[in-house]
Amino acid sequence: MPSISTKGLAMPESPIRKLVPFAENAKKRGIEVIHLNIGQPDIKTPKVALDAVKNNTLDVIAYSRTEGSETYREKIAAYYKKQNIEVTAQDIIVTTGGSEALAFVMGSIADAEDEIIIPEPFYANYNGFATAAGVNVVPVVSKIEDNFALPAIEEFEKLITPKTKAILICNPGNPTGYLYSKEEIKKLAAIVKKHNLFLIADEVYREFTYDGKEHYSILQEEGLDENAIIVDSVSKRYSMCGARIGCLVSKNKELVKTALKFAQARLSPPTYAQIASEAALETPQSYFTDVIEEYVERRNILIAELEKVEGVRVAKPQGAFYCIAELPIKDADHFAQWLLEDFNVNNETVMVAPAAGFYATKGLGKNQIRIAYVLDKERLKRAVQIIKEALTVYKG
Amino acid sequence: MPSISTKGLAMPESPIRKLVPFAENAKKRGIEVIHLNIGQPDIKTPKVALDAVKNNTLDVIAYSRTEGSETYREKIAAYYKKQNIEVTAQDIIVTTGGSEALAFVMGSIADAEDEIIIPEPFYANYNGFATAAGVNVVPVVSKIEDNFALPAIEEFEKLITPKTKAILICNPGNPTGYLYSKEEIKKLAAIVKKHNLFLIADEVYREFTYDGKEHYSILQEEGLDENAIIVDSVSKRYSMCGARIGCLVSKNKELVKTALKFAQARLSPPTYAQIASEAALETPQSYFTDVIEEYVERRNILIAELEKVEGVRVAKPQGAFYCIAELPIKDADHFAQWLLEDFNVNNETVMVAPAAGFYATKGLGKNQIRIAYVLDKERLKRAVQIIKEALTVYKG
Ligand SMILES: Cc1ncc(COP(=O)(O)O)c(C=O)c1O
Ligand SMILES: Cc1ncc(COP(=O)(O)O)c(C=O)c1O
Repeated sequence: MPSISTKGLAMPESPIRKLVPFAENAKKRGIEVIHLNIGQPDIKTPKVALDAVKNNTLDVIAYSRTEGSETYREKIAAYYKKQNIEVTAQDIIVTTGGSEALAFVMGSIADAEDEIIIPEPFYANYNGFATAAGVNVVPVVSKIEDNFALPAIEEFEKLITPKTKAILICNPGNPTGYLYSKEEIKKLAAIVKKHNLFLIADEVYREFTYDGKEHYSILQEEGLDENAIIVDSVSKRYSMCGARIGCLVSKNKELVKTALKFAQARLSPPTYAQIASEAALETPQSYFTDVIEEYVERRNILIAELEKVEGVRVAKPQGAFYCIAELPIKDADHFAQWLLEDFNVNNETVMVAPAAGFYATKGLGKNQIRIAYVLDKERLKRAVQIIKEALTVYKG
Repeated sequence: MPSISTKGLAMPESPIRKLVPFAENAKKRGIEVIHLNIGQPDIKTPKVALDAVKNNTLDVIAYSRTEGSETYREKIAAYYKKQNIEVTAQDIIVTTGGSEALAFVMGSIADAEDEIIIPEPFYANYNGFATAAGVNVVPVVSKIEDNFALPAIEEFEKLITPKTKAILICNPGNPTGYLYSKEEIKKLAAIVKKHNLFLIADEVYREFTYDGKEHYSILQEEGLDENAIIVDSVSKRYSMCGARIGCLVSKNKELVKTALKFAQARLSPPTYAQIASEAALETPQSYFTDVIEEYVERRNILIAELEKVEGVRVAKPQGAFYCIAELPIKDADHFAQWLLEDFNVNNETVMVAPAAGFYATKGLGKNQIRIAYVLDKERLKRAVQIIKEALTVYKG
């Protein structure tokens, strides 16, 4: 038998995916499963985007330009300008989701055995892209008691070696919901400049900031042009995850040129999705106002309800639509599976994402879960109620 | 300044892309450029596919399943059955173009410094995916005088080392147009079984076979289930290159499981494109009959016209829509650039793909070009006429 690569064997399975068979079994037994585990918003895609695709008049669905269509990139640049981020179409490569941007960036900046420092807990698929590129993720711990704020910059300093190529942050954070302050970004800017590293910011949740807080992008920071790389996506912004459009943005020409070679190999990003994404840029501001209001209400309910549960500690997210909750249990993997296999309240149970999968350091996050508040308030309330009742009977 | 990875620097630029600036300059000077260089068919996408997207009623463009939607994969399996290829939905992962299938396969079977043997000339982006995965391409030469038939199996034997993981073929071939016979596939089957290698067949041009020849898939070959991996795509089959849908097919469960982990990291293939691709499976047979008739006529004209040009040798393609032509020149790179910069016939010139970019062995193919016959017959004829006149004045 021909053999699988060592890298292939090392590829992590998505931490969310592991529980899918148990959820499917629960459904087969007639149990309704409330999904708190996935970041697939229930929010409607803007009508302008949907209509643009429905009304398209193409008769040959041809490859687009490798870097994305010229008009779309021009419009993305204009979008950034409105966010006080000064870039041109030349600084942008349209990708197949933020996912592909992450893969291109890792390939462009790191060779096998090189290191990228990432505050943990972090978006679990960073592990997948790193493993695929042979890159080592070096975690620096952020803590629930600090609301998952940026770890002390000395903690980063300690971890920097000649193999370190970049620091990667997610802002606002999945799974933490933490929004980095301007001061935190400035600290990161200083350290990457000092050590000649890239600073990669996954800003796919840029629009989703709450409590009057404003997002500060790494590309708003002066003097960081050679170091800063933004990973972006339309997935969450316009609730069009299935489109598969994102982009990579940098003013470092060498980086863009290199990423473009990776892009050339795969020919082009999807055409229909670019039509939708270009039109989505015309989404009225009221859409975002409504969506953000909705997420804030959901967050408030979720946090308030969770705080009522004895033994639960929860970080208060100020962005994105996730939160990490610490439960009075030992092993959230076991608890999550038990919820699906052995528990229900009136034939309803919940599926949560055990947080350990978002940490690179073994043993961390074992008593934490990640909750995505991408479902309606009533269901969210019921979900927390189910967790509460579960905790009273669960004997981990 | 932070530095680019060694891998990033090593990533090849697309051999077709290099000449783009010269073509753009020519256009600026008012010269009409006939593109013989790219495999973007002018053929219309089937109406069923276009309509399915126009009539879609989704209001949230959500992630699909990582491996592609269940219904689509079921229908792909049924499509293969019609091609006498026995597979089930479980053997299929829907990918973002054949391109992504190639990337997943390389990652799943080969580690850095491992080797994949590929008959050259080959589809140039194999180099890109190999470089991205750190894999070494080991070429085995196929020759224009043999019409680019499979090299003697002893030539493969000579190249197999402990680092060899797979043999990769493209059938029918881009850029050669060569269609492997059943006997050739059987020889490959025997050698991969003998040495425990994977046999990867890029069959994206499966439908495009001419002169009554039939395509023989590696998955029709008995006893090859553990070794065979098909890379496939809707791009050329339905002239919907911009959709970005392909798939990876294998009966080797370990391989599919591994590739799925790479797929999980990037979440899902594009949703709109899956709608189009699923509907495309309903394309009436008459569409293919017409398209193939059209390609055959184009090929016949192209080959006949090229054979009339003194000093030109051309392989007769029996599949796909490319051919390699050997010209009475020393350096096709220079010739191709000269055609764009210094030559025109009534303000018209042609853009060809220098073939050296399709060879891994330095120095091979330098007097060859690849022509894609994806444009109408009149333009094809004019294009060859331009090449003919160019050759009479060109002093390389
Ligand atoms: C932090 C973060 N980055 C990137 C992605 C990738 O998303 P996409 O590839 O859909 O743009 C996600 C998706 O959940 C995410 O949460
Ligand atoms: C031989 C071959 N394989 C794979 C591809 C990739 O195509 P896609 O990613 O559009 O499916 C192409 C495109 O030209 C090709 O010619």
